Amino acid sequence: MAIVMDVHALTGFLAAEFAQVAKDFTVLAVTEALLEVRLNVGTQHLRPGGTVSGPSMFGLADVAMYLAILSRIGPVALAVTTNCSIDFMRKPAAGRALIAQARVLKLGRVLAVGDVLLFSEGQTAPVARAGLTYAIPPKT
Amino acid sequence: MAIVMDVHALTGFLAAEFAQVAKDFTVLAVTEALLEVRLNVGTQHLRPGGTVSGPSMFGLADVAMYLAILSRIGPVALAVTTNCSIDFMRKPAAGRALIAQARVLKLGRVLAVGDVLLFSEGQTAPVARAGLTYAIPPKT
Amino acid sequence: MAIVMDVHALTGFLAAEFAQVAKDFTVLAVTEALLEVRLNVGTQHLRPGGTVSGPSMFGLADVAMYLAILSRIGPVALAVTTNCSIDFMRKPAAGRALIAQARVLKLGRVLAVGDVLLFSEGQTAPVARAGLTYAIPPKT
Amino acid sequence: MAIVMDVHALTGFLAAEFAQVAKDFTVLAVTEALLEVRLNVGTQHLRPGGTVSGPSMFGLADVAMYLAILSRIGPVALAVTTNCSIDFMRKPAAGRALIAQARVLKLGRVLAVGDVLLFSEGQTAPVARAGLTYAIPPKT
Repeated sequence: MAIVMDVHALTGFLAAEFAQVAKDFTVLAVTEALLEVRLNVGTQHLRPGGTVSGPSMFGLADVAMYLAILSRIGPVALAVTTNCSIDFMRKPAAGRALIAQARVLKLGRVLAVGDVLLFSEGQTAPVARAGLTYAIPPKT
Repeated sequence: MAIVMDVHALTGFLAAEFAQVAKDFTVLAVTEALLEVRLNVGTQHLRPGGTVSGPSMFGLADVAMYLAILSRIGPVALAVTTNCSIDFMRKPAAGRALIAQARVLKLGRVLAVGDVLLFSEGQTAPVARAGLTYAIPPKT
Repeated sequence: MAIVMDVHALTGFLAAEFAQVAKDFTVLAVTEALLEVRLNVGTQHLRPGGTVSGPSMFGLADVAMYLAILSRIGPVALAVTTNCSIDFMRKPAAGRALIAQARVLKLGRVLAVGDVLLFSEGQTAPVARAGLTYAIPPKT
Repeated sequence: MAIVMDVHALTGFLAAEFAQVAKDFTVLAVTEALLEVRLNVGTQHLRPGGTVSGPSMFGLADVAMYLAILSRIGPVALAVTTNCSIDFMRKPAAGRALIAQARVLKLGRVLAVGDVLLFSEGQTAPVARAGLTYAIPPKT
């Protein structure tokens, strides 16, 4: 499915609609195959010991899938997550950003489904994987 | 399985080990059947529109299961979430705290499994449900 | 939400629409709180060692949620499972039927969400738990 | 991680350990990146309308991940599924076999995690996706 929002458009959308958290994320790339976004890890994302917290990893996976869907359907702020199943596989490397790679596997009229891999920046073994479903509001 | 950490002990554990987020949570009750904890919702937990964010709901479910496990095995800070499958079912009510009710369904030597329901305080229809698995570190 | 199909009606529906597998299942009870159904375990459900197979447990959880939804919305054969997250917690007892207890947590216009516990008949520790989402076809 | 069981070895293992269902599956390929296995769809796998049933899809995903793990650790019959989260995205094409492509994302001492895509043979849009966790028994 054609990409209708590119890195620039997605970045602008985040800044406009999610001003509170937009600076935490940098959209790196968007193609039909994969959307890539970075969590710019700050102290608010860390657990004792310096590792990124579970909610921060969840939030990154969620944002990545949301942006991947929007890249195909345009700025539909009201798409909502209905399910996320996330496996935490390895402890993220301390002092590194996290990278999410999201792919859309189904884009239906009502539901969109995809999955996400999370990596510590510069590493190849994923720290987490997630499958997510979004409900897309009916067009009005 | 007998409860070895009560509300007071769990509250102290949170304050000591997770000082950064401990004030966000209030442990309300702990029995063999159910652990109940409240997310004291602040602006950092909200999305535009005043609804609690997905990562905040995930974080509450995760904390609730963690505390429910600790209430039975004692203060094992190193227990880690390995999987969470969460269904977001309804939009939380604006301006209300969120309540999590967690139950432990299996407490094995290596893995603990349970589920959590989340409610807007004072309401009966759950806003989310989650199943979680924790890996318990071997005793040393 | 009121129950519109009782044990008798659900049993008849299974026999009419799913003749191939209907005899595997016995609907035991249906209330607003809980639907209970038994898998009448036969050799086709077993793995080497005499334990019930994973797909058979999945199938039981899936049928239980399906029937629980139908008990509230009537005989909508086209409702389809969109997600199931299942945790296998204990090996089922050999030589025993499996019991599923399903509850509906959300019944929306488009999606229904619930969860299921599976037990070896006569035992109290669950062998598996599952969360399931069904898509409900639009009324025509 | 090196492959220690190839297509031939995995096929022999299935026939020896899971004689009841071995003929339902054909192992097509195994590399470090991906294991591919086909469900040779028979009437026992179908629902009314001729579509492959949910439990059959679950079973295929489960077998695919099991074989992918064994291809790396050798014939450990006692590895058991602890969690599966599966998204059903499209109705399988009638009259076609199902193909599973499994990849191992983590192979730990205790837990192995991976994901699986299912396709109707000869088609490119996946019908389902699953994330699975296996517990690996301690070496004795």
